[in-house]
Amino acid sequence: MTKTTSSSASSAKARLQATHGHLSIQPCFHSHAIHNNTPRGPADLARERTNASFKTMDMTEVILRGKENVVAQSLAYQMIQCDPELRMHQGHNYDLTRDEDHEQTLRQVALFGTSEQQDKWMGDIESWRVIGCFAMTELGHSSNLPGLETTSTFDRATNEFVIHSPNLTSTKWWIGMAGRTATHSIVVCRTLIDGKDYGLNWFIVPLRDRRTGRLFPGVVCGDVGQKASRQGLDTGYIQFTHVRIPRENMLQRWASFNPQGEFRPMPNQAISYAPLISERFTTLRFDQVTLSRSLTIAVRYGAVRRQGAHDEQILDYQTHQTMLMPGVAFIYLLNIVEREVCEKWGQVKKFAQTDTERFMRELPDQHGVAASFKAMMSWYVVEVLESCSRSCGGHAYSAYNAIPGLIGDFGVITTGGGDNIVLMQQSARFMISALRKVRAGQEVEGSVDYMNDYGRVSLITKTSFQDPRDLFSHEFVIDALKWASLKKTIELQEVLSKAGTDFDMVWNAHQTELVRMADIHTWLHFLIVYQRGVQREKAGKPEVYAMLKKMGQLMSTFVLKRHLDLFLEEGYFDGWHAKLVRQLFLDQCKDLRKDAVALVDAWAIPDFVLKAPIGKYDGDI
Amino acid sequence: MTKTTSSSASSAKARLQATHGHLSIQPCFHSHAIHNNTPRGPADLARERTNASFKTMDMTEVILRGKENVVAQSLAYQMIQCDPELRMHQGHNYDLTRDEDHEQTLRQVALFGTSEQQDKWMGDIESWRVIGCFAMTELGHSSNLPGLETTSTFDRATNEFVIHSPNLTSTKWWIGMAGRTATHSIVVCRTLIDGKDYGLNWFIVPLRDRRTGRLFPGVVCGDVGQKASRQGLDTGYIQFTHVRIPRENMLQRWASFNPQGEFRPMPNQAISYAPLISERFTTLRFDQVTLSRSLTIAVRYGAVRRQGAHDEQILDYQTHQTMLMPGVAFIYLLNIVEREVCEKWGQVKKFAQTDTERFMRELPDQHGVAASFKAMMSWYVVEVLESCSRSCGGHAYSAYNAIPGLIGDFGVITTGGGDNIVLMQQSARFMISALRKVRAGQEVEGSVDYMNDYGRVSLITKTSFQDPRDLFSHEFVIDALKWASLKKTIELQEVLSKAGTDFDMVWNAHQTELVRMADIHTWLHFLIVYQRGVQREKAGKPEVYAMLKKMGQLMSTFVLKRHLDLFLEEGYFDGWHAKLVRQLFLDQCKDLRKDAVALVDAWAIPDFVLKAPIGKYDGDI
Repeated sequence: MTKTTSSSASSAKARLQATHGHLSIQPCFHSHAIHNNTPRGPADLARERTNASFKTMDMTEVILRGKENVVAQSLAYQMIQCDPELRMHQGHNYDLTRDEDHEQTLRQVALFGTSEQQDKWMGDIESWRVIGCFAMTELGHSSNLPGLETTSTFDRATNEFVIHSPNLTSTKWWIGMAGRTATHSIVVCRTLIDGKDYGLNWFIVPLRDRRTGRLFPGVVCGDVGQKASRQGLDTGYIQFTHVRIPRENMLQRWASFNPQGEFRPMPNQAISYAPLISERFTTLRFDQVTLSRSLTIAVRYGAVRRQGAHDEQILDYQTHQTMLMPGVAFIYLLNIVEREVCEKWGQVKKFAQTDTERFMRELPDQHGVAASFKAMMSWYVVEVLESCSRSCGGHAYSAYNAIPGLIGDFGVITTGGGDNIVLMQQSARFMISALRKVRAGQEVEGSVDYMNDYGRVSLITKTSFQDPRDLFSHEFVIDALKWASLKKTIELQEVLSKAGTDFDMVWNAHQTELVRMADIHTWLHFLIVYQRGVQREKAGKPEVYAMLKKMGQLMSTFVLKRHLDLFLEEGYFDGWHAKLVRQLFLDQCKDLRKDAVALVDAWAIPDFVLKAPIGKYDGDI
Repeated sequence: MTKTTSSSASSAKARLQATHGHLSIQPCFHSHAIHNNTPRGPADLARERTNASFKTMDMTEVILRGKENVVAQSLAYQMIQCDPELRMHQGHNYDLTRDEDHEQTLRQVALFGTSEQQDKWMGDIESWRVIGCFAMTELGHSSNLPGLETTSTFDRATNEFVIHSPNLTSTKWWIGMAGRTATHSIVVCRTLIDGKDYGLNWFIVPLRDRRTGRLFPGVVCGDVGQKASRQGLDTGYIQFTHVRIPRENMLQRWASFNPQGEFRPMPNQAISYAPLISERFTTLRFDQVTLSRSLTIAVRYGAVRRQGAHDEQILDYQTHQTMLMPGVAFIYLLNIVEREVCEKWGQVKKFAQTDTERFMRELPDQHGVAASFKAMMSWYVVEVLESCSRSCGGHAYSAYNAIPGLIGDFGVITTGGGDNIVLMQQSARFMISALRKVRAGQEVEGSVDYMNDYGRVSLITKTSFQDPRDLFSHEFVIDALKWASLKKTIELQEVLSKAGTDFDMVWNAHQTELVRMADIHTWLHFLIVYQRGVQREKAGKPEVYAMLKKMGQLMSTFVLKRHLDLFLEEGYFDGWHAKLVRQLFLDQCKDLRKDAVALVDAWAIPDFVLKAPIGKYDGDI
């Protein structure tokens, strides 16, 4: 899942070593001395692998995006496994990912800093002389940026900004590595110049002496305390009492404040959200890492464990298949979708330098997609993790089997980085405003472009579905979802347009439906992006492409089934359609089960990373 | 939630002290030194309490079943709070519950032992000279009793039984307190006498010397290792190598084996499930304890925390209400339902002594109800816990706020004590067999008695619903659920009746639908039992009764909404009905929100037990 090139591998190792003290120390696993005399597991897994419809390595190449990365990942794993320091201190399996997360955070400076600022800081950051943290959230203002209270007041006399936390609720809270590690922080502050409020800007504020680790005067940091997981990461809080920093420490790519004291604000306050977009897309990677480990364990255990009157492999039970197979398919789709949306976001970011107008035009859609993808996908990951846990029976409760730790570490994602309910409403707001534009005669683009067609779609009352084989058609599913999304958007936009000054109250009275509307739109866009992305695999091995298509079909049915009640309620489907969708879902899960073991093998997660005896590659549990 | 009489309080204290070494040691919480200068929380909570429609204490009396118990619980809490030993060592808040659980386990002997056996053992058990554990589950056979492999072979020469674990998979596994504590175990074994297999029976097997704690020869016990939670409980495994026990150690209430060597087997093997029924009903208590703590925290936080453009209490957001209010109502219903089903089970157990035939006749229904209630309720508790966690935003992630610990400790319940999917299928099997009986002209009783009416109900195709006010009628909801349950049961019983020798295969192909069928039946029975139970509160304070009725109505709508897709799919409801049900659910959540704080206050959980700063009674978070 992790993308590592061999050139960056050695520096990654050096960094891991440099921070191993901050990783949580887990007891080594000692396998029980008891051994099974007649292990059937290895034979079961061998048979599953022989019967697979594709070569595992071919699929691994797709996931890791090329042979080169497969080699690099394998080298990285070997290095970690062979190094006693790294092995002993490995935390909750997220070594590489945390490393990536970390760099992601530090690189915010690359977006918001001018090229001079980048030159000044990036060298120290690369060499870990500066360890940064990103201080946006405040104790009283989690997902509500306009409410942030920390101030940065310019003092003309000294040419400095004064950073200050005016009250308890303005304490920067949940700040990764602020507790003990970070030397510098990027602090989001309300900017006050000559008594005027210029909105939010970003400032580099030194926290600790990089040699002694002592806090600078006026800075108070602490650990937020014991968390549900990730105890090794020193998540902390920061309070500032009139801390002075040079004028140049304001990140000035967008807003600038020149030596003559002229402030040029950001062309649009929306730019302050841009780094959140990157952060939210990063969670899609974390979704895959967590889920692939958990599903590898659950699927292998399901193929090895036997139970019941005929001693069946438990993976042959229908409920077991429906618990696990959609999750397996989902990771593959998400892998390709993540590639597509990150490439797109990379292009948009480039426009920031080359075509500012286009950048500004595309930013809101990018913001909407990132928000709703982060929310929707992480919610679904939580569902699948719970299924993985249940499908391992009592064994999932054993900490040795890794799943409880994966669940604990993932928990923060549904509220961290923007509460999911809040994010879904941001997406809903974007949808409502898109439809309003279309109705006013404007054309919209990006994820909501299907709304341009609203006149035609709003006349449809029932599916034109005739033949059960239609269900396999991508177009049929997409049409149904577009219809459902527009149906809800039209209904809710009309209600809201009449609300007048009661807008917030009316919004709240329809909050559940607005979230549901955004849910449909998000899955629809997910399937559309996947369909586009998977075309690029057509040139590869036909059996791999066939498998990817099959998984796309399963997820399409999954989404239809998820919103079956809406289709029935609005009369788009009748009972006959609903039963067909349900049966198709069961059939597709059963069909995919045949390749289940090979599909999890292809994620190529070594046993020493899984750390779960019941999910061992050789099946000798 | 916990029922303690003052007479048992002092012995409970003595026991807690006797075992405090086994409780997990948690770091004390040190409140942060920072204080808010302008706390609005206390005023917010005070206003919520003033506006409540009932007196908290009146409701507490209902929940704890009488004034006496309110006093006793308050005394017990005081005692724990004032005793530095108990306070310091308190585990994950379950002191009283674990104590109860423990006694529950030990009291199995009362059901399966003869009165002589009870006389012999109960004194030592009461005084903790004997610490028992209950060894049923085996490593290879979790929820599958017929597959158990541990043997008890009678040796005529010495008048002893020889207990033996023939292989690895027969290791007794997940046995509470077997790791280090228990002196004796009740072991479920396959009984072999003169080469003949007499099925499962129960044997008292000494494990450790009660003074030295050393294991007896032939007994190997160990800890199963680190678990996802409840680290303080020494969950363990046991292996026996030809361990000899006297003939009298077979529990002989049902099966007996006299000195002349004549074996009289149990009248029905189903009796061996009876102790599972008690164990499963006990989980309904644990559901309440876990959920009441978690919801107290989430609701108080929701009333104190403000967010958004108009700085609303977050409990005023619609999605927040729908996440929390059904859970609040659910506990109240469950509290009354638990009382009803446990009283009923108490009566049935008495028939074991007075009217064996009736006992045998009622046992299968009790087994079905216990299995499906354990499964369904614990699944729903997991859902609500997740909602509680999400509704506290980032704060739920802090271990200081108790919710992560509650979730971790609860996790085992969905698979422990019988995997939920397996239990739901037991309920489904019972339903199918009941309908088969009805169709063969027999009458059925207990939870499935509505099936007697199947001829009439099966002719109905659509609700007779006319007036939106009907939705408030208990009868309307019950009728709809009976219809839905019978509809599915008829459909699936017909499919299965044609399966012949392919029965298991056909069962598996319809497993998802069978679980869904049992889901409907279980909620239906839950609502029926509640409706019966709540009548007993009619004599009490009218405003308390009104509130209980209101919560019953919310849960009725919740259940209808849960199965809305089925009602739509089968044409019983149309889109208009569905929209009404959805809107009613939102309205009822909003309405109940007015009393939310008083409703959680009534559970009377002291701050020192909650151990969650964000859920403090005074609102000064």
